[in-house]
Amino acid sequence: MEIGFLGLGIMGKAMAVNLLRHGFKVTVWNRTLSKCEELAAEGASIGETPAAVIKKCKYTIAMLSDPSAALSVVFDKDGVLEVICDGKGYIDMSTVDPDTSLKISEAIEHKGGYFLEAPVSGSKKPAEDGQLVILAAGKKELYEEIIPAFDVLGKKSFYLGQVGNGAKMKLVVNMIMGSMMNAFSEGLCLADRSGLNCQTLLDVLDLGGIANPMFKMKGPTMLQSSYSPAFPLKHQQKDMRLALALGDENAVSMPVAAAANEAFKKARSLGLGDLDFSAVYEAVKVAEGSASGTK
Amino acid sequence: MEIGFLGLGIMGKAMAVNLLRHGFKVTVWNRTLSKCEELAAEGASIGETPAAVIKKCKYTIAMLSDPSAALSVVFDKDGVLEVICDGKGYIDMSTVDPDTSLKISEAIEHKGGYFLEAPVSGSKKPAEDGQLVILAAGKKELYEEIIPAFDVLGKKSFYLGQVGNGAKMKLVVNMIMGSMMNAFSEGLCLADRSGLNCQTLLDVLDLGGIANPMFKMKGPTMLQSSYSPAFPLKHQQKDMRLALALGDENAVSMPVAAAANEAFKKARSLGLGDLDFSAVYEAVKVAEGSASGTK
Amino acid sequence: MEIGFLGLGIMGKAMAVNLLRHGFKVTVWNRTLSKCEELAAEGASIGETPAAVIKKCKYTIAMLSDPSAALSVVFDKDGVLEVICDGKGYIDMSTVDPDTSLKISEAIEHKGGYFLEAPVSGSKKPAEDGQLVILAAGKKELYEEIIPAFDVLGKKSFYLGQVGNGAKMKLVVNMIMGSMMNAFSEGLCLADRSGLNCQTLLDVLDLGGIANPMFKMKGPTMLQSSYSPAFPLKHQQKDMRLALALGDENAVSMPVAAAANEAFKKARSLGLGDLDFSAVYEAVKVAEGSASGTK
Amino acid sequence: MEIGFLGLGIMGKAMAVNLLRHGFKVTVWNRTLSKCEELAAEGASIGETPAAVIKKCKYTIAMLSDPSAALSVVFDKDGVLEVICDGKGYIDMSTVDPDTSLKISEAIEHKGGYFLEAPVSGSKKPAEDGQLVILAAGKKELYEEIIPAFDVLGKKSFYLGQVGNGAKMKLVVNMIMGSMMNAFSEGLCLADRSGLNCQTLLDVLDLGGIANPMFKMKGPTMLQSSYSPAFPLKHQQKDMRLALALGDENAVSMPVAAAANEAFKKARSLGLGDLDFSAVYEAVKVAEGSASGTK
Repeated sequence: MEIGFLGLGIMGKAMAVNLLRHGFKVTVWNRTLSKCEELAAEGASIGETPAAVIKKCKYTIAMLSDPSAALSVVFDKDGVLEVICDGKGYIDMSTVDPDTSLKISEAIEHKGGYFLEAPVSGSKKPAEDGQLVILAAGKKELYEEIIPAFDVLGKKSFYLGQVGNGAKMKLVVNMIMGSMMNAFSEGLCLADRSGLNCQTLLDVLDLGGIANPMFKMKGPTMLQSSYSPAFPLKHQQKDMRLALALGDENAVSMPVAAAANEAFKKARSLGLGDLDFSAVYEAVKVAEGSASGTK
Repeated sequence: MEIGFLGLGIMGKAMAVNLLRHGFKVTVWNRTLSKCEELAAEGASIGETPAAVIKKCKYTIAMLSDPSAALSVVFDKDGVLEVICDGKGYIDMSTVDPDTSLKISEAIEHKGGYFLEAPVSGSKKPAEDGQLVILAAGKKELYEEIIPAFDVLGKKSFYLGQVGNGAKMKLVVNMIMGSMMNAFSEGLCLADRSGLNCQTLLDVLDLGGIANPMFKMKGPTMLQSSYSPAFPLKHQQKDMRLALALGDENAVSMPVAAAANEAFKKARSLGLGDLDFSAVYEAVKVAEGSASGTK
Repeated sequence: MEIGFLGLGIMGKAMAVNLLRHGFKVTVWNRTLSKCEELAAEGASIGETPAAVIKKCKYTIAMLSDPSAALSVVFDKDGVLEVICDGKGYIDMSTVDPDTSLKISEAIEHKGGYFLEAPVSGSKKPAEDGQLVILAAGKKELYEEIIPAFDVLGKKSFYLGQVGNGAKMKLVVNMIMGSMMNAFSEGLCLADRSGLNCQTLLDVLDLGGIANPMFKMKGPTMLQSSYSPAFPLKHQQKDMRLALALGDENAVSMPVAAAANEAFKKARSLGLGDLDFSAVYEAVKVAEGSASGTK
Repeated sequence: MEIGFLGLGIMGKAMAVNLLRHGFKVTVWNRTLSKCEELAAEGASIGETPAAVIKKCKYTIAMLSDPSAALSVVFDKDGVLEVICDGKGYIDMSTVDPDTSLKISEAIEHKGGYFLEAPVSGSKKPAEDGQLVILAAGKKELYEEIIPAFDVLGKKSFYLGQVGNGAKMKLVVNMIMGSMMNAFSEGLCLADRSGLNCQTLLDVLDLGGIANPMFKMKGPTMLQSSYSPAFPLKHQQKDMRLALALGDENAVSMPVAAAANEAFKKARSLGLGDLDFSAVYEAVKVAEGSASGTK
């Protein structure tokens, strides 16, 4: 099976390598060419432009950094739209908002192409290990045809119906995650100020009914005020905002998520936006004498 | 090792049985005598009153249903206080608030006895399996002497320092749990109203970084509006209130927990207080035409 | 002074009449012609189209119902843009969001025209009495030239600087108003459920430091569950959303406004969106047995 | 009419002077004697102890600083309880919580005395001007007999039913006030960060439907970060807490008040508790670089 692959960032590179190692023929493109050469060493062909990749391959996967990059490879010169046509499938695995996804979908289908949005849950390590969770939505036939690739890239894929549902599902998950991170931060702060040992709280949590990988992984680094950005706080806050906007459209009242969103905004106002989203703990902790110490 | 055991409810009975099966000599007392006979069949001796049990045993564990029962066995006629004395240890594993715990502690120490509060995390099944998590606080020497019993009752015990810290640690954990349950409910409601499949959301959550036993266990029953009370909503809300009060004492601002608490109060006002705490989902879902359907 | 006037709804008609009665020559246009004839009886000239009005008058005031109407009279066929030119001033007093205002401003200035946004605070009665509060922003010279008209229409006008500031000021005011309405509703509900008399609460409030016209006017109707829409709840909620979005842009955390916004969303989900914004009281009151009664 | 008066702080002194000037015979007592002499110069008699005042007068008014002072004059040696008896009325106008009020009420009625709680709305200036608002509850007959005094002390008095209702009414009013102060602070902060002029916002607010004395009085000092404590923030937060507890008892969900309470708690944690309650504005404003500046 031959697959085009657009975007070789941390995630994209790991995914393309996995495809190559499982016997797929892969033609790659990346804005900066050097990344392509690393893949060529693993056996990939190189496409000069997004259009060239689409022209050559029946299926093309994109893994871009953000909505503007996702739009650019489709709509700009030498982009996907110039050559996509009946019989070709385009699978965008970037994380974008539902509107961006819909815009790309409409443009591609207008040219006769097939479209699937397929954002993933999981970051670098799961990408390398082929353990992503794939949230696919759009053309059902395309989903079924691309399953062999998804089986290599992820431990599980879901087909969620119409375009937009993949992005929405990701927003719902990230909204729950953001509220949980705030609850966790409030709990750590309450424990600390009440004279309890925070490390013991982590140990107790990890043995009970709400034990989860996030608490286990982030807890120890939060206690050290270490916030190397795996998922930047400003992006988490943006996802909270988009999830609340989705709730607004559908008249869903979400007071806990709204309170969590305001806490993330407070963290942004304290200059923590580029740190890991767990840095909201610093905003929760701000108190007399500590505020200046958080920066 | 000989141990007295006061209170043979669901939890207490399972715990006393475990002690017996691991070779402890156990003398039991329960307000309704029939429960004692079940234990006698497993080899237990029977004490006529709390005082009789204390008199006979160097160490006595209590596992009562609530603060008033915990106070009653200590302070009432034929209670613990009448005979407790130097050299005897009293371990209260009931779930009570920090003030109740302190009151019992002071009374017992005033008589020369040793006291340990030791609330547990875990319900019926972990109690039967000896897999509780024990949050002990109070007399350090007593903690060390009673470890052989804790090793039988739980998978892990913590010594948390002064009396009150066990109760506080439990409040912190339950506060995080209550906020998480609200975040989860809001997410389910948002998914549903946005046209996503809630079962799929559960599947996605269970594969990701915030997967936890509570979502896995409660999710499916919540989707069926089934709320058999493992932990009644009114008790969860009471713990949220006590945790917020603890935060008030220590000037800890917890806006997410406060929003969750108000949601639980709304659920109480809708008549859901005696159902499982996951019934807060019904309050989140209340909308035109659905409100009356929730009851 | 000759003034064009576009839009003769409840507000626009009252304002145009005021201008006529104070000696201004007024040329009116309205989408449905009959409204124009009422004004003609008061001495107004009639313009066939927005373009015709602009052509005839040096200054034209618009008072349209919403952003789409405001955009339509400018950009559609026979609209303002076709004839606006150097030396002519366009004053939009409609309530629109900052983005709509900016879009109109840019289009008009691109043609050489002068633009002022000037949303008002106050509804039908103040409009009739010339007691509006005018929040003007945009071309300073135009503001100064149009002051004679503003003096007739309002009791006070403010010049707030660049275009968008009028809309923003109105959002800030409405956000405070929405939070106050929620605080008021919660207080009424708390009084009622605590066995206090709500009418007495209104009397007490009216004698103290937080007495204000809104409590005085809305309180009695709220106690009668009467919500004839002076300002529809869905519009209030939209303004809360826009104000929170403005806060998001500027990293301002507003947890009280966010909680109020979620309460308005809950009210919308209960089917109260078309009632007066004070109907959020019904959402606050929802409880066992009352939910179905609110509809 | 002869009236006893216990407590000559800022409020009590002003009230006792008013009674004297309107022809009442007044016998005063105060913990520090010098205050009594000031009143003697206005024509008051002096009582050596609370008991002595009660013994001499048929009606005695108390205006103490807090619940502990209110309890002390009643229950301590030479206190009210020692001599109160059938036919004598005791009117406590201090601001206390419902439980304290009930405790005093029961003790006095047990001795055959009549009791009225009558907290006031209004501070120093209204006390001097006889413009307080009086929230009376308890013995109806006593209320009717004491009206001549209330007419001198206040512009309006309310009879609210059973003891506790006066305290509750005050909590409801203060809860609304605290939420409003937060909404106001958020609005000022949003205006400032959005490039609007805060003084203009104050002017606009003062002309509209939510204009109120508190915004008018506190706004200008807040913009100067001046927080001389008319009503200390920690007392406002305590009243929010008590109001939320009252809501908890009655299953009233109050998410806006809860969010406001958490903001006041954040302000306390920043060391602002002894300043005026309007200092919550400083907590709302805390941002990168500003945090250290708030202290």
